[in-house]
Amino acid sequence: MTGEEVIYPDGELLVEGDTLVAVGPRGVLESYIRTCPDWKPDRILDLKGHVIMPGLINAHTHAAMTLLRGYADDMPLMPWLETRVWPFEAQMEPDDMYWGTLLALCEMVRGGTTTMADMYMNEDRVADAVLEAGTRAVLSRGMTAFNMANAEKGLQENLDLFHRYQGAGDGRLSVFLGPHAPHTCTGEFLQEVRLEAERAGMGIHIHLAETRAEEQAVLQRTGRRPVAWLETLGFFGSQVSPPIANHQPPILAAHCVFLNEEEMQLLQRYGVGVAHNPESNMKLSSGTAPVDRMLKLGLCVGLGTDGPSSNNDLDMFGEMRSASFQQKLVATPSALKAYEVLRMATVGGSEVLGLTRCGRLEQGCLADLIAVDFAQPHLIPCFSETSHLVYCARGSDVRFVMANGQILFEKGEMTGLDEEKICYEAGERARVIAGRV
Amino acid sequence: MTGEEVIYPDGELLVEGDTLVAVGPRGVLESYIRTCPDWKPDRILDLKGHVIMPGLINAHTHAAMTLLRGYADDMPLMPWLETRVWPFEAQMEPDDMYWGTLLALCEMVRGGTTTMADMYMNEDRVADAVLEAGTRAVLSRGMTAFNMANAEKGLQENLDLFHRYQGAGDGRLSVFLGPHAPHTCTGEFLQEVRLEAERAGMGIHIHLAETRAEEQAVLQRTGRRPVAWLETLGFFGSQVSPPIANHQPPILAAHCVFLNEEEMQLLQRYGVGVAHNPESNMKLSSGTAPVDRMLKLGLCVGLGTDGPSSNNDLDMFGEMRSASFQQKLVATPSALKAYEVLRMATVGGSEVLGLTRCGRLEQGCLADLIAVDFAQPHLIPCFSETSHLVYCARGSDVRFVMANGQILFEKGEMTGLDEEKICYEAGERARVIAGRV
Repeated sequence: MTGEEVIYPDGELLVEGDTLVAVGPRGVLESYIRTCPDWKPDRILDLKGHVIMPGLINAHTHAAMTLLRGYADDMPLMPWLETRVWPFEAQMEPDDMYWGTLLALCEMVRGGTTTMADMYMNEDRVADAVLEAGTRAVLSRGMTAFNMANAEKGLQENLDLFHRYQGAGDGRLSVFLGPHAPHTCTGEFLQEVRLEAERAGMGIHIHLAETRAEEQAVLQRTGRRPVAWLETLGFFGSQVSPPIANHQPPILAAHCVFLNEEEMQLLQRYGVGVAHNPESNMKLSSGTAPVDRMLKLGLCVGLGTDGPSSNNDLDMFGEMRSASFQQKLVATPSALKAYEVLRMATVGGSEVLGLTRCGRLEQGCLADLIAVDFAQPHLIPCFSETSHLVYCARGSDVRFVMANGQILFEKGEMTGLDEEKICYEAGERARVIAGRV
Repeated sequence: MTGEEVIYPDGELLVEGDTLVAVGPRGVLESYIRTCPDWKPDRILDLKGHVIMPGLINAHTHAAMTLLRGYADDMPLMPWLETRVWPFEAQMEPDDMYWGTLLALCEMVRGGTTTMADMYMNEDRVADAVLEAGTRAVLSRGMTAFNMANAEKGLQENLDLFHRYQGAGDGRLSVFLGPHAPHTCTGEFLQEVRLEAERAGMGIHIHLAETRAEEQAVLQRTGRRPVAWLETLGFFGSQVSPPIANHQPPILAAHCVFLNEEEMQLLQRYGVGVAHNPESNMKLSSGTAPVDRMLKLGLCVGLGTDGPSSNNDLDMFGEMRSASFQQKLVATPSALKAYEVLRMATVGGSEVLGLTRCGRLEQGCLADLIAVDFAQPHLIPCFSETSHLVYCARGSDVRFVMANGQILFEKGEMTGLDEEKICYEAGERARVIAGRV
């Protein structure tokens, strides 16, 4: 998963603590034991017939929106937001964020996702859920600046979140700043966010160029298209060298549907990472992000589901498939090949989130890994594991999930979470909120 | 599933032999027993927490192409066909069709598909597989007319298939004629097929307006676009009355990507049914069929996966989702609403295949039904069963499958097929064929 498509047909890997200490073809276990004669495995797992791969990285979501899953569909964007989503969200309380996120994490873990980049409200409760679930996350408090007092309060909450949770859970949590989008923030506020990010050494997670309406709103207000306007504000900081590398700390731009060639080159020069959300972009009729072109230009691109109210699931296998199909639909069957999209959902995600030890199964990386059961009718025959992972596999094919060296899912059961209770609580809360709206 | 979205939150249904004898809210069982005092159920199944719905109908596939699943991806259409698909197919023998189809049927049944419309070679072996599996199918022998001797041989095989298998398996099998496509058949041959169909009272299954290349080839050869050319040939028979009803016996046109308004109206007047294949159309960069418009014009439209080498799975839940997303991408979020696409995958399929007693759960219909487990994190909360079936459910959520009154899948196991043997045989055969190519 490092750019080269390396597969060990009969492989072994060793985990010690939170780390992969050896990965390779059969024999690495024996070699390792020879060099460390005192080393004894606690447990040996035989996963014959499975593909072991890095845990998937969901590079953009709003996890607690599970509570709005299927609450409103098939509606034009603005009526959907104004008459359904926002009134529902206005009734949500901090505990709802906690239970909604736990529900999302059950689905994510079952489906092989070990890391998410989340942006929402009451993100401290989201953090609590992630700490409990054992997964990895990059959290940001979504901040709009329609009202400056609210904006400042949001920024303070986001900074508090950083001071409280950055590095928590044995390093599983990171915190980014989450200015919502160019058309929902003022230039002044975006500059303030930029300054705070520099001061604290924080990454930034923002929606960018998602819809034509955003583009038009920003053009009308500033005379510039969203990317150009952000550059003028100094929001992207300085250009990186070599330009192919991404920012540290990262700037993560979600969606990037409406980018022209010049704008893609600009994001590439500044090392801005992109989170691509094909299913949300389809369901909301946003459009097709030019990700095949972005990859050719050397941009770092991760893959995300967006929130479950515009998707409506959190299945990253389905998202990979949709990503490739959508690019092929607007171009040729050679667009966004299987390995390119698999890379996007793993190492691409780690690059845009600055998680340098995730997304790959290599010695020294963190032990975030999953096992996919290939002994099933829909995965037979197998000429290419990569093709099957992208074009045939589903979240439900995942049989084993480990994050940070801890087993989270095995033999059909979540090992650490009370799934039944979470399903009940989240379902009830959603029902009650809907009744209040 | 009859055009109205009727859901019984606490429903009951009774199956006797191959037929649904009662369907309705709780109490229908008791009422039925009162009217038939001697009637005793052999078995009562409690499927609490599940949605019971009609078995899905895959209106266009080439099932035995499971053997080519993932054999070649990410290639432009013609090199893909010429250097990969056709050389592989040239090495396939009749028994490969049998095992390839059985593999497809394992996947289909597990995923809730109880009926398929198949077009391929050695269709008698496909028929054998379907008879064994217990599902329902509309079979056609794909016929090209590049070489007239082959074409005549194909037509004879297709007619033999009809005489041997029409109505076989307690009515589970029907046989249509399968002229491949306008650009792969001569006008003379298509007229011969039309004549034979009329004589025998057979339906016709044809690819139509799938690619721009087909359109151009037909235009160049005949001076007409594919639909207009077929009409000139008299291929569609006579116009139907009222025009909204479809042909009996049916004409099924698969794909229909490149139709203008006039052509859609023409197909509607002739009662030609359409099989929409969104994932194949995306993966092969064919384009977006105007199905939202077709439905508004009153055409009958079913949903299909196409063959597993251009998909690469046979999951009709995924196909529903893709169908809706693709229409939304090119139009608005209101395009192809959840219920419209669910209808397409059930009663729409029954209409285009002339299976008047399938696709609905109503008294007197055939007992083709499935149960979908809604007690799972990715299906919680549940504001709308319809939304979840289309936007969140997957083939792997199906827990129970019945076709023609027989249970085919229950408690995670295929009840009638030796799945392990099928997976092994099909996998081995695919490997051996690939080695011979």
